[in-house]
Formats: sequence, structure tokens, C-alpha cells
Amino acid sequence: MMIPPPDEKSYQAARARQDQLIKPTGALGRLEDIACWFAARQRRVIPETLKPAITVFAADHGVADQQVSAYPAAVTQAMLNSLASGQAAIAVLARQLNAIYAVVDVGVNRTGVTPEHVIDERIANGTQDISTQPAMTRQQAEQALLVGADYADKAIDQGATLLVAGEVGIGNTTSAACIIAALTRLDPGMLVGSGTGLDAKGREHKLDIVRRSLQRAAIANPAALNALTELGGFEIAAMAGYYLQAARRGMPVLLDGYISAAAALIAINMEPLSKEWMFASHQSAELGHALVLEHLQLKPLISLGMRLGEGSGAAIALTIIKSALQLHREMATFAEAGVPES
Amino acid sequence: MMIPPPDEKSYQAARARQDQLIKPTGALGRLEDIACWFAARQRRVIPETLKPAITVFAADHGVADQQVSAYPAAVTQAMLNSLASGQAAIAVLARQLNAIYAVVDVGVNRTGVTPEHVIDERIANGTQDISTQPAMTRQQAEQALLVGADYADKAIDQGATLLVAGEVGIGNTTSAACIIAALTRLDPGMLVGSGTGLDAKGREHKLDIVRRSLQRAAIANPAALNALTELGGFEIAAMAGYYLQAARRGMPVLLDGYISAAAALIAINMEPLSKEWMFASHQSAELGHALVLEHLQLKPLISLGMRLGEGSGAAIALTIIKSALQLHREMATFAEAGVPES
Repeated sequence: MMIPPPDEKSYQAARARQDQLIKPTGALGRLEDIACWFAARQRRVIPETLKPAITVFAADHGVADQQVSAYPAAVTQAMLNSLASGQAAIAVLARQLNAIYAVVDVGVNRTGVTPEHVIDERIANGTQDISTQPAMTRQQAEQALLVGADYADKAIDQGATLLVAGEVGIGNTTSAACIIAALTRLDPGMLVGSGTGLDAKGREHKLDIVRRSLQRAAIANPAALNALTELGGFEIAAMAGYYLQAARRGMPVLLDGYISAAAALIAINMEPLSKEWMFASHQSAELGHALVLEHLQLKPLISLGMRLGEGSGAAIALTIIKSALQLHREMATFAEAGVPES
Repeated sequence: MMIPPPDEKSYQAARARQDQLIKPTGALGRLEDIACWFAARQRRVIPETLKPAITVFAADHGVADQQVSAYPAAVTQAMLNSLASGQAAIAVLARQLNAIYAVVDVGVNRTGVTPEHVIDERIANGTQDISTQPAMTRQQAEQALLVGADYADKAIDQGATLLVAGEVGIGNTTSAACIIAALTRLDPGMLVGSGTGLDAKGREHKLDIVRRSLQRAAIANPAALNALTELGGFEIAAMAGYYLQAARRGMPVLLDGYISAAAALIAINMEPLSKEWMFASHQSAELGHALVLEHLQLKPLISLGMRLGEGSGAAIALTIIKSALQLHREMATFAEAGVPES
């Protein structure tokens, strides 16, 4: 399936409309750009009100055994319950946004009954420890991409017009740093942050694990699928698949933080045109996020020092995007309002 | 009437709650600070849902005769209609926010019937040209402050728990630049921007008018009431009175852009404690706004290149603030959710 390009004509028509609304040209700043960006993707001058979908993918990481996180791996499973019961940050925000909301377990290391409101799509009970072996098999990576694509389809088929992928997975900033380093050739030292809250010593150890993992994987040809198989997480693979499928169906996605950026990088490496459907919501406090956004030439809308993941930064930015579209739709033009022009 | 201080105990209790919510400490960044800030001002650990009021003050400026704006002075009057009919940017946003909304004419230069939904509180039909004489009499300045205070009271009495003052007034960035220069002693060259869209030549002329006005006024003792009388606008005075009265009644206000900063500066000069009740919503694209916020030691929440005024930047930031409070209220603690801590 080909990825459609945004519609330049609708973009220009929306820009012309912005210039006619009762305000000095450009006075709404980035809100004007947002309206035009969505116009091009909805292929209409005045975009329809957005119906957001938030899909949270959860998975465990074998590398968590190497003490790369301030929290024990058991937190991933505990968070599944909170995501499903509506008490996690993203669940609160999804409710506020009246979003279509789904929690998909693509690889949490757990046994027993699946919690209510969690969809069990486990590919395995967590990845292997990437510092000693490949995260997953090639077949598992492909399967995780397909699961992600499937949930993009489900969201779109339920009427969503803007897709957000969130994630939970203790250890996933380590996996994300490895993927980003492998695909961008940026220095790992600039890509390894404190994640959930490591101190300087913990961060140094994490950097060592990242370097060791990169050396082990020795990805000569940094094809995205290789990077995913060697260094990935199941939730990162699912997010990449979600982004790719949204793009194929001509549906915009709102990127979130650092993990989301790693998934976006994979998607863009597989299908460069998918980038046209990505909007950068926020700049996370996680070291390296600003850098990878810059590498992708994506400019985040807000920067509030958030570093939670789950899709929370995207959800916060979403309210601004909704306002931007409402202004574009409901403000009068100079002619309609009888206001003299400059 | 004394200005009450925020409640430090509620602040600390809210901070303690944030540290117990199911997320790494600090992972919600500035959203955590917002929750604590409002907790201190509502004097409770978990602030109630905000009911915003947006009061737009409109007035004309005699100095507009000096071609300091890209738009003719007649725009102020035309914008009154759009503010009242719901087609101006701030009217659209007020509707979206379900805000208490009022449009108050404190000095538009007009004759004839007052448009529907506009409240006529005109002190005069515009100020005098500040480049040649004082903007208003001392009595008029005091009257405008009182009108502003009155509308803060009205908003609070209607149940508002967060106040936003907006403005419309062709020529008011010139007046604001003069006030800010007079009260901060910052160089006018760093304070005169393009306003509604002046080119470089227009801006140079505007800077000349600002310098001439400052020289004429020669405010040796930069008391706020002097600056207001000599260089002010009626809407700026009303906003300052609005901010002061909100602070006296222990009610937070959300500052907007450049004009709002000039009004805040006046209020703080009159009553330094009023600053404790001010939250900086956004950084405008207008030259000098970043500088005056820095001078006031206020850190804006967002920076989207907006420069429209009307209260629009504050209204956009308001959605983030609402989300921050909702997260603070509805997220579970580690204990409630049974999530292991670090």
C-alpha cells in the first residue's frame, strides 16, 4: 500500500483563509501552521473537528535485568492495571479528550489472567536482554509491526482522525537509545538520559549497557528491521507499525516523547513518506529527544519538561491543536466582519 | 484591602501528592508545578476544576494618529462588534473553554449606539496623543483602574476561579512599550516591536514616537499611576485594576501578551504582592515581551509565536492548565494502584 502525499492545494487554500481571518497576518503564530497542516492532510480548507485515538502499547525488556531503570521491571505489569482502570496519566487525559482509548499488551512478562480492559496481543513475555543477544527474532519483529498496524486500522475504523501511540515498558529508554544511535549514528553519550530517574552513576552504567548492546549487535547495515530485531522492544515495533499504517491510510499521527521518536525513526527508515503524516507534539526532558527531533527535522509544539511517556505529551499538545482548528473554523474573515484591513 | 499570600502548606501538600502519583518524580515537568501553584492559591491540596472568566477591555489611543500601527484606528471599533458577536479569536476560544465572557468598552472612539453584548464603560473617546500630551488625567486613570476592579469583582461573583483580561486597541503596543520603558528603564529599542505587522521602517518610526513620548512625559519618579496617566491607555489601566482586585480577593489571573505585561507591571508597581497571583501563560512574538517577563521573573508556559492579544495566548494555555489539574486530581498514588516504587 502506497503512502499518499498531503494535499498542497488544501494547504494553500487554508493559508489563504488564515490571511483573511480578522487578525494581523501571522498573529496566531504556530496555530496558523497547525490549521494548514491538518487542512493538507484532511484534503479540505477547513479541517473537521478531530476525533483522537490513543493506543497504549506495553511490553517488557530483557535488558531491565541489567539495572538500567530506577524502577523494577514489575512496574510494567502494575502499570497495565492502572492504564486499564483509568488511573494512569494517559488514561486521565484520554478521558478528558474523549478519545478512543485502547491498552494493548504486546509483550509484558506476566502469567495469569489478562486484566480487564487490556487486550492481550503478546508476542512473547518480554524481549531478550539486548546487551547479550538479539531482542527478538525477525519473525517476532514483523509480527509486532503487524499488531501495531492492526490497531491503527482499528482506531481509524472506529472513526479516529488523529492517532496517538503511547507506551509503557521498564527499560525502554535503553532500547530506544540503542535504536536511535544505530539509525542516526549520533553519539550514544548524547542519547542516554536518566529515563525514569537515574542518578549520574546509574546513567553512566546505562550508557555502558547501551554501548555494549550496540557493539554486540554491530549493525553494519542499519536497516530499520535489523535495528528493531537486534535492539528493539515489542512496544516500539508496534508503534512503528502503527505509524506506518496510519500514513498508508492518510491519517495524521501525533508523536510523543523519546520512545515514540525511536519508533518514528524506524517507520521513516522503512517508508520515508510516513514522516509527512507525523506531527511532533512536545519536547521531552529526556536527554536526546531534542536531538532526534532535530535529526528528523520535526519541530515540537510545546516543551514542558515532561518525561513520562504513555502518550502524555501528545495528549497535552492535542488540546492546543483542537483550539487551533476551532479558530480556523469559527473566526470571521475581514469581509464577513466588516473590519478594515491594513 | 490587603492582598493575601498564597498558602505554603497547601503548596507543600500538593507537592507531596505529586511525588506519590504513579509516575517517576518530576516526570510531568511543569504540569506538576502548575498543580502546586493552584493548590497554594485555592488553599487546598487538590484544586477544584477551574471556572475561567475572560474579560476583554477595548479602547482607542490618540497616538494612533501618528501612524504607529499597520491598521487604521477604526479597527478598534470594528473589532468590538466581532468580539461581541463571537467571531473574534478570543470569542471563539471563550466559547470552547465555556468561560464567563464579557466585552467592556472603556474608551473606544465612537459615536452612536453601543453594539449588543458590549458593555459601555467609556471613560473618554480614546486617550490623547501621548507623543504631545498626557494620555489622560489622573482622575481618568483612577476611574479606569476602578472599572477594571469592578469587572474582576463581577467575574468572581459569577463564580470564576481564574481570571483572564484581554484587550483590543489600535496603538496599544506603543503605549505599552512606553509604560514598560518608563517603569523598567529598559532600552526602548528593545521594547518596540512590529505590533500588528509594521515593517522595519514603520517600526523605526514607532520607536521614534515612543522615544518622543518618553521624553515629553519625563517621568522622573516612575510611580505607576504617573506612567499610566502620562503614557497609558484606558484598557491597560482597566487591566491593571482587574489584576489588582483579583489579587486582593485571592484569585489567580493568567497573564496574556505584551499589553497584559504592561498592565501587570503597573499592578506590581502599585502592589508588589499582586505578582503572587499572576501566572504567565505564553511568550508572545512581540519584541520585548520575553524581556519584560524576565524582568518580572515570570516564566511563560508556552511560546507559539502568537502576537494577537485579546487574551488569546492565555486562553490557549488554559487548556494545558486544566489538564494539569485533572491529572493532579485523578491519577492514582503508588499505594492506591499497587505499583512498586523505585
